[in-house]
Amino acid sequence: MSHKLDHGSFIPLYHQLKDIIKEKIESGEWAPGEKIPSENEMRNDFEISRNTAKKAIEDLVQEGLLDRKQGRGTFVSKPKLEQSLTGFYTFSKVMAAKGMNPTDVIIDIEIKRVKSSIAKTLQINIKEDVVALRRLRKANNEPIILETSYIPTSLIPGLSREDLEQYSLYDFMEKKYGVTVSKAREVFEPVLIRDYESKYLEVNEGYPALLLDRIAFNKAGRPVEFCRSIVRGDRCRFYTELI
Amino acid sequence: MSHKLDHGSFIPLYHQLKDIIKEKIESGEWAPGEKIPSENEMRNDFEISRNTAKKAIEDLVQEGLLDRKQGRGTFVSKPKLEQSLTGFYTFSKVMAAKGMNPTDVIIDIEIKRVKSSIAKTLQINIKEDVVALRRLRKANNEPIILETSYIPTSLIPGLSREDLEQYSLYDFMEKKYGVTVSKAREVFEPVLIRDYESKYLEVNEGYPALLLDRIAFNKAGRPVEFCRSIVRGDRCRFYTELI
Repeated sequence: MSHKLDHGSFIPLYHQLKDIIKEKIESGEWAPGEKIPSENEMRNDFEISRNTAKKAIEDLVQEGLLDRKQGRGTFVSKPKLEQSLTGFYTFSKVMAAKGMNPTDVIIDIEIKRVKSSIAKTLQINIKEDVVALRRLRKANNEPIILETSYIPTSLIPGLSREDLEQYSLYDFMEKKYGVTVSKAREVFEPVLIRDYESKYLEVNEGYPALLLDRIAFNKAGRPVEFCRSIVRGDRCRFYTELI
Repeated sequence: MSHKLDHGSFIPLYHQLKDIIKEKIESGEWAPGEKIPSENEMRNDFEISRNTAKKAIEDLVQEGLLDRKQGRGTFVSKPKLEQSLTGFYTFSKVMAAKGMNPTDVIIDIEIKRVKSSIAKTLQINIKEDVVALRRLRKANNEPIILETSYIPTSLIPGLSREDLEQYSLYDFMEKKYGVTVSKAREVFEPVLIRDYESKYLEVNEGYPALLLDRIAFNKAGRPVEFCRSIVRGDRCRFYTELI
């Protein structure tokens, strides 16, 4: 590692070090899976404190660029999973197209009432039941998205684990109940991973994530699903083309 | 506040309390600008510790739903600024259309070389100079986005503060040098606000933000700008329509 840090800059040393490491990863000089110099080596190379090196590495682990392996060192992470936001977002198809193996863990399926903001979104009465489906979506066995779908029972009276072994949710809705999703509106914002989300997604609390709310509509423009997802920011990024 | 917390749930109490407060905001029961009950009042209402109430409120401040005002209490925040990702993203026009007053603080304009990953993105030689423009973009005087644009000097040999008082960056590029931006690719991912970014954006370190990288192309498909932005997650959210 040859770059020099500027000890007089208003940009903190650990941030400068982060930029140097990032550049090595982004330019391809350091490849995914490659072991990077230790904190001690960086301390000597850059004439910085061990804490400075540690903080730079911790940030980059949190941002998903580096991977720390207990007792073995720090490695360049696999590239993030890229997902388009302009096409329809179907997790299993996107992952399969990337040659990854998508699997779902069904956490629970409940028939229940929902809070008034969700009822309003679904344009149903607060006393109406919905099917609430909570899933952990994995790619190559790594948890990526924790999501909950809410669908009025007036549209799909039931949903079982077996149904979801056979069909994707949207295929099931279409084939069994003639409910076709034909468009959707997604709102998303950056958030931090919290408590139980961190357990399911297997990352620490405070890691960056994307909160994604989708409302799916049928052809007649009626909302048929509200889905709230937490997407790991250290493993995913999104892109869009503007014309 | 009438809801009960479920002391036997696997969902932590502070998270349940957050959900209740969120619901009151999202359903409109609590309006923007309204003062919410104090931590002490919540402690009594819900039979929780003061720390539990405090943690719920702190999280919601970080997520931009609540606003703490020194010595005055905690208030429901203004709604987040919503920006479309399917249309072309022009900060000043979007803000003006919302009736907000957009202003820019030009932090610096430099002619310099860039690191190799940016040179590669711009398809220029590493020895070529670029104009680097760093701006803080505000809406109603509140800092929203910290962004840096890199444009090869072969396309625009110079750029002054006066130019940007008169024109938007893209208008300037088009009118003065015939460089027309006709499409763009944006990649974005959730990140955390770091050190000097927090000073410019006036939020604490560790707050959620969106990192947005845009490559803008001219009609011939040549990259003419690389722009990296940090967007405050507590003040902005994005939406897109999928068809």
